[in-house]
Amino acid sequence: MKRRVGQYLMDCISELGIDRVFGVPGDFNLTFLDDITERDDMKWVGNTNELNASYAADGYARIHGVSALVTTFGVGELSAINGVAGSYAEHVPVIQITGAPTTVAEEKGAYLHHSLGEGSFDNYRKMYQKITTTQAYITADNAQTEIPRVLNEVINEKRPVHIHLPIDVAATEIEVENEFSAPEHESSDVKQYIKAIETQLSHAKQPVILTGHEINSFDLHEELEDVVNRTQIPVAQLSFGKSAFNEENPYYIGIYDGEVAEDDIKSYVDQSDCILLVGSKLTDTATAGFSYGFNEDDIAYINHHNFKVGETRAQDVHLIDLVNGMKDIDYQFEGDYPKLRNNIEAVEPSNEPLTQAEYFSMLSGFFKKDDVILADQGTSFFGSYTLPLSQNNRYIAQPLWGSIGYTLPATLGAQLADSRRRNILLIGEGAFQMTAQEFAVMIRERIKSVLFVVNNDGYTVERKIHGEEAPYNDITMWNYTMLPQLFNGEEEVMVHDVRTSAELQEALNTINRNTDKMHLVEVKMTKEDAPKKLIKLGQVFADQNS
Amino acid sequence: MKRRVGQYLMDCISELGIDRVFGVPGDFNLTFLDDITERDDMKWVGNTNELNASYAADGYARIHGVSALVTTFGVGELSAINGVAGSYAEHVPVIQITGAPTTVAEEKGAYLHHSLGEGSFDNYRKMYQKITTTQAYITADNAQTEIPRVLNEVINEKRPVHIHLPIDVAATEIEVENEFSAPEHESSDVKQYIKAIETQLSHAKQPVILTGHEINSFDLHEELEDVVNRTQIPVAQLSFGKSAFNEENPYYIGIYDGEVAEDDIKSYVDQSDCILLVGSKLTDTATAGFSYGFNEDDIAYINHHNFKVGETRAQDVHLIDLVNGMKDIDYQFEGDYPKLRNNIEAVEPSNEPLTQAEYFSMLSGFFKKDDVILADQGTSFFGSYTLPLSQNNRYIAQPLWGSIGYTLPATLGAQLADSRRRNILLIGEGAFQMTAQEFAVMIRERIKSVLFVVNNDGYTVERKIHGEEAPYNDITMWNYTMLPQLFNGEEEVMVHDVRTSAELQEALNTINRNTDKMHLVEVKMTKEDAPKKLIKLGQVFADQNS
Repeated sequence: MKRRVGQYLMDCISELGIDRVFGVPGDFNLTFLDDITERDDMKWVGNTNELNASYAADGYARIHGVSALVTTFGVGELSAINGVAGSYAEHVPVIQITGAPTTVAEEKGAYLHHSLGEGSFDNYRKMYQKITTTQAYITADNAQTEIPRVLNEVINEKRPVHIHLPIDVAATEIEVENEFSAPEHESSDVKQYIKAIETQLSHAKQPVILTGHEINSFDLHEELEDVVNRTQIPVAQLSFGKSAFNEENPYYIGIYDGEVAEDDIKSYVDQSDCILLVGSKLTDTATAGFSYGFNEDDIAYINHHNFKVGETRAQDVHLIDLVNGMKDIDYQFEGDYPKLRNNIEAVEPSNEPLTQAEYFSMLSGFFKKDDVILADQGTSFFGSYTLPLSQNNRYIAQPLWGSIGYTLPATLGAQLADSRRRNILLIGEGAFQMTAQEFAVMIRERIKSVLFVVNNDGYTVERKIHGEEAPYNDITMWNYTMLPQLFNGEEEVMVHDVRTSAELQEALNTINRNTDKMHLVEVKMTKEDAPKKLIKLGQVFADQNS
Repeated sequence: MKRRVGQYLMDCISELGIDRVFGVPGDFNLTFLDDITERDDMKWVGNTNELNASYAADGYARIHGVSALVTTFGVGELSAINGVAGSYAEHVPVIQITGAPTTVAEEKGAYLHHSLGEGSFDNYRKMYQKITTTQAYITADNAQTEIPRVLNEVINEKRPVHIHLPIDVAATEIEVENEFSAPEHESSDVKQYIKAIETQLSHAKQPVILTGHEINSFDLHEELEDVVNRTQIPVAQLSFGKSAFNEENPYYIGIYDGEVAEDDIKSYVDQSDCILLVGSKLTDTATAGFSYGFNEDDIAYINHHNFKVGETRAQDVHLIDLVNGMKDIDYQFEGDYPKLRNNIEAVEPSNEPLTQAEYFSMLSGFFKKDDVILADQGTSFFGSYTLPLSQNNRYIAQPLWGSIGYTLPATLGAQLADSRRRNILLIGEGAFQMTAQEFAVMIRERIKSVLFVVNNDGYTVERKIHGEEAPYNDITMWNYTMLPQLFNGEEEVMVHDVRTSAELQEALNTINRNTDKMHLVEVKMTKEDAPKKLIKLGQVFADQNS
């Protein structure tokens, strides 16, 4: 079958079930965009800028499993690079496609716009080598090997890949020899690794599983729960990867976040003599600055490409095989472990100014069982990562990469990935301002998400680390409730202006009665108030920097 | 004298006359920001995001001569990377300072937030090697050699530099041994190069100087004009670097942009047998896709680090020396050359829908002699680069890098660099949306610029290249005149809603009567209309991509 290379690429991407492509047009990708918009099985979602597009693609991938992002050469791909780096750090599979100058222009070393004007064309793709798991320079000759190779890699590794697609190559017709199909995982023998875990467990008096982000990346939720039900080992989650484990499971004990964890969880985990890190990583944010009390020698690393249990080590091992293999572990824990408690205090709505504690308590009661909750890396994350979730909830945050503003476009992407689930965005105004224009695209796409924007006059997370009253932590004050009118979205969006718990309760009720609309809730709280965890973590980060 | 490294760095930067520092706070730069805000001779300008900060720093540098930008590690410096790459491509000197994790954390390979979570800390600074002229990793021991070295380089090379400043290093006290002072240019002997130019000119019947961006970078306007007055060689400017040459000078013939140039200019330049490229580069945008009619063998390259005249070549030569040396050229041209004509047709204001041609004609009459004009890389640039300027006007655009949205934050930076000059921004709505939040900062900083936002329903520049009616060239429709209210700037900003030439005339009059305000003019024009040059160039770019 004859196809243009651009068509062939999109045929392959379609095989991954991708039905939305994010990005921004530019003259080096325009004709290739026709290969997207001509399709019935795919929709082009034009974003307001490339950073926002990369965040939206990340959000889509976290729900759908993989996503695609198209930018133009230079200005476009470099504007997106922070977002793609975040996907790389947090193991989110995004296919970044750069529409590039023709191979003829490149061979000539022409001084083209969007180049550095020095005849070189490889600078940006070399930069992408640092933050993508593989890269491809597509030609008509290699399209049918290189495109399948990078798409297999994005699925197998769950990390971004970079495709450099010269615009003349995209338009070149090729004879397609084999149809691409989404790769199936090929399992490898992991018996020796499972044996090593068994040996470790056989000496253990108080084992615990600490799980996190990689379970989300590889969608191993059911498999891991199966392992836990069989072995009856208690499970704590790290905040980095919340929703990796079903919080309704009886073996779930709660969030472990180092010295700031609840006393009983802290005590159990810190005194554990066998800590199974399953698809998780002990980062500074997740552990309150590495303040774990357990012994590093007692850690069993059961991660993708990083297995280290006792003397058994491996880099080439796949997480899917490890988790599936763990179902066969011959071990069952019979000791005591702390039972999950719901610490959320009910709020009696009043006309007093709303506090951060009340806000998060009330949100907790607002969450429904299939909601996707997105929390930006500030008060929103630190106030929400301990809130209990139902089995089907999904929690999206960026505690390793920590790029503020990420969650607004990510909500666009996550909501488009599954329109049946209500997406709830928790964000502060400093973060919101970073990517605010994407709200216009959310209106255009008629998504029905619920956005809570906390307006408390500045960068609260920074205030709690350093400079409580410093001018650099001030930001400009906006009238957020005007945004739907600015973006011609008054029909699509209901706005709510909230200063008290009574007003918040009223807004939550109204939202539940109007599910056919998007909702924007401006939540005004005082500058000084902050979630407890943030106050503690702020001090930890300040110490870490001195 | 005892100073913290952070204080010492800012002492040095202050010696460059920098009085505004742009950027965004982050926990790896917070304590260092105190070293900025404590100063009486400097003000911190917090931007809404790092890309906008990098554009603002670029704008400041184009007026002041050099600028400083502070971001945090990872998320911050990568968000800024497209803006700094633009400064690199277009030779604009920006000092990019990254507040980074402590040296202790780096030595440990700690899994810190904003890192890739793999223990490495050098990825981002390696990415910056591609787009900065030099880099430094500051320690307490090397601060007094490395900081002067990179600041000398930013001044001598007029390109960005990258400073990686661990936050513990910034806080370390050192005994300052020598005060830094801004480098003076040390001239080198260029006699052999001047001789080569003379030889080339001695055979020439029809010489021409084509000048551009490097004259702006090195501020060699007067020196070049002196050369021209002595040698009487006619001068054309490239659009890439407009305002390099005094357009009121009698030897100025106009803009040369390849096959789309005015007939008499095209004819003179294309038939020239000695084209002196002085501080300029023949890029695709500047030459309508390399459509120059002259012979490449007749080009004399008189550029920074790129001298090539006949058989004489050099890479180590400095533009300042070349232009100063050219004053001694023993040559005077006595031939005919085309006289500059003002092609701007006067517009009789009417109530008919405003056309692009009328819009730019009327703007031309609105410019005052000291105005700084910023034109975004779309209709705004293509419609304005041929408008005549006065000697003191400054024109800021990005025809090589071409990152749309750049000029809005650049206006903030350029206006803050010199509050006495009125800044006029010409931008389209697709570009405006990319960086729109920076308008809030412009209001906070109470600048008095005049912003013209063309609202014509989409990415016009892309439409003219490919996809005239394609959905990917549509953008969301905003109510731009609401923006001052959204940003609490109704006192600071007057808004103007313009659809006809009569309304535009009325707005221009009102603006001139109210110089104590910022002005936002929404200019509505039809989707199909475009500046003539853009229609021609759009076809050129489409051909270039096929």
